Amino acid sequence: MFIPTFDDVRAAHNRIRSIIHKTPVFKSAQINSIANCEVFFKCENLQKVGAFKFRGATNAILSLPAKSIQNGVATHSSGNHAQALALAAKMNNVPAYIVMPSNSPKVKVNAVAGYGAEIIFCEPNLKARESTLAEVVSKTNATFIHPYNNPFIIAGQGTAAKELIEDIGFLDFVVAPVGGGGLLSGTAISTKALIRNSQVIGAEPAGADDAFRSFYGNEIVPSENPKTICDGLLTSLGDLTYSIIKEKVNEIITVTDEQIISAMKLIWERMKLVVEPSSAVTLATILSKPELFAGKRIGVIISGGNVDLNSLPFNNFS
Amino acid sequence: MFIPTFDDVRAAHNRIRSIIHKTPVFKSAQINSIANCEVFFKCENLQKVGAFKFRGATNAILSLPAKSIQNGVATHSSGNHAQALALAAKMNNVPAYIVMPSNSPKVKVNAVAGYGAEIIFCEPNLKARESTLAEVVSKTNATFIHPYNNPFIIAGQGTAAKELIEDIGFLDFVVAPVGGGGLLSGTAISTKALIRNSQVIGAEPAGADDAFRSFYGNEIVPSENPKTICDGLLTSLGDLTYSIIKEKVNEIITVTDEQIISAMKLIWERMKLVVEPSSAVTLATILSKPELFAGKRIGVIISGGNVDLNSLPFNNFS
Repeated sequence: MFIPTFDDVRAAHNRIRSIIHKTPVFKSAQINSIANCEVFFKCENLQKVGAFKFRGATNAILSLPAKSIQNGVATHSSGNHAQALALAAKMNNVPAYIVMPSNSPKVKVNAVAGYGAEIIFCEPNLKARESTLAEVVSKTNATFIHPYNNPFIIAGQGTAAKELIEDIGFLDFVVAPVGGGGLLSGTAISTKALIRNSQVIGAEPAGADDAFRSFYGNEIVPSENPKTICDGLLTSLGDLTYSIIKEKVNEIITVTDEQIISAMKLIWERMKLVVEPSSAVTLATILSKPELFAGKRIGVIISGGNVDLNSLPFNNFS
Repeated sequence: MFIPTFDDVRAAHNRIRSIIHKTPVFKSAQINSIANCEVFFKCENLQKVGAFKFRGATNAILSLPAKSIQNGVATHSSGNHAQALALAAKMNNVPAYIVMPSNSPKVKVNAVAGYGAEIIFCEPNLKARESTLAEVVSKTNATFIHPYNNPFIIAGQGTAAKELIEDIGFLDFVVAPVGGGGLLSGTAISTKALIRNSQVIGAEPAGADDAFRSFYGNEIVPSENPKTICDGLLTSLGDLTYSIIKEKVNEIITVTDEQIISAMKLIWERMKLVVEPSSAVTLATILSKPELFAGKRIGVIISGGNVDLNSLPFNNFS
């Protein structure tokens, strides 16, 4: 198992720097006052494709040997990784094959198709996704790019925290959401390398607390029937992300969907940013532990902004 | 009549710099490709109170003589100026009296009240607003801060274009929305002072085209029964803004609400930013005149982001 280090994050950053957006870091005096600490929001919702996933996908493609590149890349995803890989492939003139469940929202299918990827539909279950992907890979010789359990993906995601810390300087805490653990692993690698005394916190919905249970247990607990509004945080940890998180992350904290929706509303009202529930879980976590975070400088990775504005979970302005 | 110059904008910037947000400038490769030009979005939707109005209001308050400050400031507004003046007053420990129509949306009333301003309700018509304001001013000796026909307001609004140009350098065009003309006047003052050959364009909804008719005529045409979704652009020019716009603006271009809504949707989909219709009028204008803007570098002032997410005018993701 190739476990990425901060050297790999640095190499990833050099590879992708000219292609990604260097996203802005925002703060809000009002949120700081409510949270009684200083929060720096690294806005990956303003990244290309609207999510940090573009960092890892671009790094993974640029790290492929020349021979593999010809045959393209493949994955199964109905979420941000699908769009990120499709766009990163397009920008590098690499074919992309994306296996998507037949019930994927039309908008996501259109987005992936818009980036020129070939879409292969399958039955909406994990077994069908995996077997369809295996068929596609065997037929095309494309390289499977796992959405998170891949060292190049993890190193790419780590560039967000690297940029944040290079911009802002010392942070007592860095908080990132945890689903499959790619972002949290990369964030932990960068943070621990750049700030000796910083603590890294994983933020997870209580209705999908498999990472919490894995972290405080001794093995990967699979995510079974997760129930949360955070559609980006439904997956289980992989062996690679699990081992990095076990080693480098200080705590995983869970919050309810109600807390997440309330944080999402607060970010809109005070910062005029629409973020995914899967991102708002970070601020919800900070607000849930006032005694832990009081007076501290806290970096937060806002992971994405791909939300259907027509079905927001909060009643705004009511 | 005291007509502000770029020296006044510079002085305003020095006064307010440490209080306002230096808002980011974003661009989108996809929007550039659609528009066939290079567009730089100055994101005042991410300004405090979610709109450029905070710049002018802060400058106006900081420009008041010490004696007037004690008695506070007053205005009538149900929009962004009310919130901006209320917050700027609060941050400077100055009393604020805001006359608001009795049918103002509760959210706006709450926002103004949240900044500690005293709200005086009146009948929802201009006459009642003006007479109520006159009463308030006579009772309190507060200084009336006009939302746009005020040299300190205009100089403050001009700092947005100044920052944009200082960040981005040469621009062929700068496009700003026009309602009462405060933002457009300030934008024109800064742009013409900083870039000799740049053209300044006012963008206006066709259903409220009083500035267009005033500009191409010889007198201020009042805004009567305007019909547009752009609730920030319903007012008429003032004598001060009219004379600056007549002298410094190159063109005013009108677009339909349909074009505005489509531009607003594009900004959300491609940039993950929710902007007011009154801001999207700028991109709509660029898209409406491909022959004028082709291949050019264009700065755009995104004036605000105060939108009710529950009643967006476009069907997203459909």
